[in-house]
Amino acid sequence: GLALGLWRRQAALAAAREDEEEKELRQRFMAPPVSGLRELRRRRRELRSRMELLIMETQAEVCRALAALDPGASFSVDSWERKEGGGGISCVLQDGEVFEKAGVNVSVVSGLLSEEAARQMRSRGKSLKAKDGKLPFCAMGVSSVIHPKNPHVPTMHFNYRYFEIEEADGTKQWWFGGGTDLTPTYLNEEDAIHFHKTLKEACDKHDLKLYPKYKKWCDDYFYIKHRGERRGIGGIFFDDMDSPSKEEVFQFVRSCAKAVVPCYIPIVKKHCHDSFTPEEKQWQQLRRGRYVEFNLVYDRGTKFGLLTPGSRIESILMSLPLTARWEYMHTPPESSKEAEILEVLRNPKDWVH
Amino acid sequence: GLALGLWRRQAALAAAREDEEEKELRQRFMAPPVSGLRELRRRRRELRSRMELLIMETQAEVCRALAALDPGASFSVDSWERKEGGGGISCVLQDGEVFEKAGVNVSVVSGLLSEEAARQMRSRGKSLKAKDGKLPFCAMGVSSVIHPKNPHVPTMHFNYRYFEIEEADGTKQWWFGGGTDLTPTYLNEEDAIHFHKTLKEACDKHDLKLYPKYKKWCDDYFYIKHRGERRGIGGIFFDDMDSPSKEEVFQFVRSCAKAVVPCYIPIVKKHCHDSFTPEEKQWQQLRRGRYVEFNLVYDRGTKFGLLTPGSRIESILMSLPLTARWEYMHTPPESSKEAEILEVLRNPKDWVH
Repeated sequence: GLALGLWRRQAALAAAREDEEEKELRQRFMAPPVSGLRELRRRRRELRSRMELLIMETQAEVCRALAALDPGASFSVDSWERKEGGGGISCVLQDGEVFEKAGVNVSVVSGLLSEEAARQMRSRGKSLKAKDGKLPFCAMGVSSVIHPKNPHVPTMHFNYRYFEIEEADGTKQWWFGGGTDLTPTYLNEEDAIHFHKTLKEACDKHDLKLYPKYKKWCDDYFYIKHRGERRGIGGIFFDDMDSPSKEEVFQFVRSCAKAVVPCYIPIVKKHCHDSFTPEEKQWQQLRRGRYVEFNLVYDRGTKFGLLTPGSRIESILMSLPLTARWEYMHTPPESSKEAEILEVLRNPKDWVH
Repeated sequence: GLALGLWRRQAALAAAREDEEEKELRQRFMAPPVSGLRELRRRRRELRSRMELLIMETQAEVCRALAALDPGASFSVDSWERKEGGGGISCVLQDGEVFEKAGVNVSVVSGLLSEEAARQMRSRGKSLKAKDGKLPFCAMGVSSVIHPKNPHVPTMHFNYRYFEIEEADGTKQWWFGGGTDLTPTYLNEEDAIHFHKTLKEACDKHDLKLYPKYKKWCDDYFYIKHRGERRGIGGIFFDDMDSPSKEEVFQFVRSCAKAVVPCYIPIVKKHCHDSFTPEEKQWQQLRRGRYVEFNLVYDRGTKFGLLTPGSRIESILMSLPLTARWEYMHTPPESSKEAEILEVLRNPKDWVH
């Protein structure tokens, strides 16, 4: 009797503790994590679990910061599963007062890759040895595009991701990728400097070489070749990052993810009530057209997603703006505000030294 | 004195005759042809010249038919040259009463192709033997996309093109390609039947096998894989057409080009004054988004153009609508008019037998 009563009390306490933790985690996140809270707790020391918690936290942090600026609107939250393994959580705010379309997406997928597909996942295209031609993999990330309504508030994109692939001999290849970049309709030097400076500070805590290298990579990556223009005024971008160590790269990615809100939200706050003309709105729409061109023609993530069986198209194309415009032969007048931003998109500048 | 006077009189007569012909041709076309009138007259029996005249005539015919329906608007006509050889004429009407954006583009380009590029030009990917790795080629065509304002008037696209490539041993490979297809926002069965019937009649004059074969090719080609939808309700599409003979294929292409105005213009006339709701306009904008997805992600012509050095980007991307829209997770209600067109885009129908 006594032993059974004790066991029951302990079990009840454990259950209550678990309920508490679950409640707390639910409050911290937009939805229950793909891998499940219990599973994440069980393997809490593994990097996969820590990264999944980081991307979930980042999603919630960014969504809350955006929602606070657009009180009338709210995020729709969709949890989805992938037949082939894993799933994701898509949070989208559409047609708000401040934001035209804001999406923050988490995905955690796993399964088997062909050698060819695995090679394509790495930008350096390292070859990987597969057992029976298939490689077990795990890919997770948070990605987001924020398109505001006001043409004086820039569009922002970020993405942080982690990959693991197991080779035939059991060795695990792993790497991180990611970046944060800004796409203004009009140039505001103060904002550009604040954005880049915040990213540089996040990088500099880890290695002074990172910001210059990843700033250049960003300018090179977001290049719309057929236009001779970059998509925006850059930020940082990196891929295939697998040194100095898993722990150190994770800490770097954590710093970058934590920098998203401080580098962007102050700019939104500063300009979301700026007045604007119909002509300024129209120029924003034309720039949105260029955004669509980059994402559909060049972006590796989008292309990879569209070609991957079982991928969730609505979450991939969430990055497209609500509205866009293409005018034949549109050229802004010389020395206009429109020509000013084009000049910077054609010849990227260093914003911080 | 007498001989000189006679020579002068004959020279003056020849010059006057040439002026007359030039004037007549100028009236027939939107701009002087790329190859020049004199050159086209000199080699008037060659198929290249006859095809260039056909694409110029088609451009003028379509532009005039469209302009007649939108009297307030007018076509801007740009003649452009390609540094590497050849050039083109782009006619664009933008933001009219009836048409949101209507472009009719002629291009006549020539130069040298790499074996790889030459292989990519043919959908069947025949290998071609080059002298010193380079193949002299000539490519010409007329291509057009018409985006009307009224959501009850469908978007129409057509393209007719001719290629010649000279192999190392001097033999010339040649082929034709093309097609005409319709993209309605709402389904109108009568219009769909009229459109397909007019194309079928143009095909049937040459070979009864052509329409069924090219109708299916069209449904297969204009497929937005990641959406599981076709771009529109089809029409005809063909590529690599090189039999039964150059003359016969040319006559077939001529019939198709001549069918553009009769298959489309009556539909525009019928619906351009239809009333529509803001919701119908919004659905049109979402469908325009899909149009952009097809053109930027899948269309071989657009992809080839964006990758070709020296190509005229504004003429290639003229096919994009003036405005487009992407909503996250938009699904029309069951049994709505919007669901009706989606059903046909997912499961193509036979409109004529």
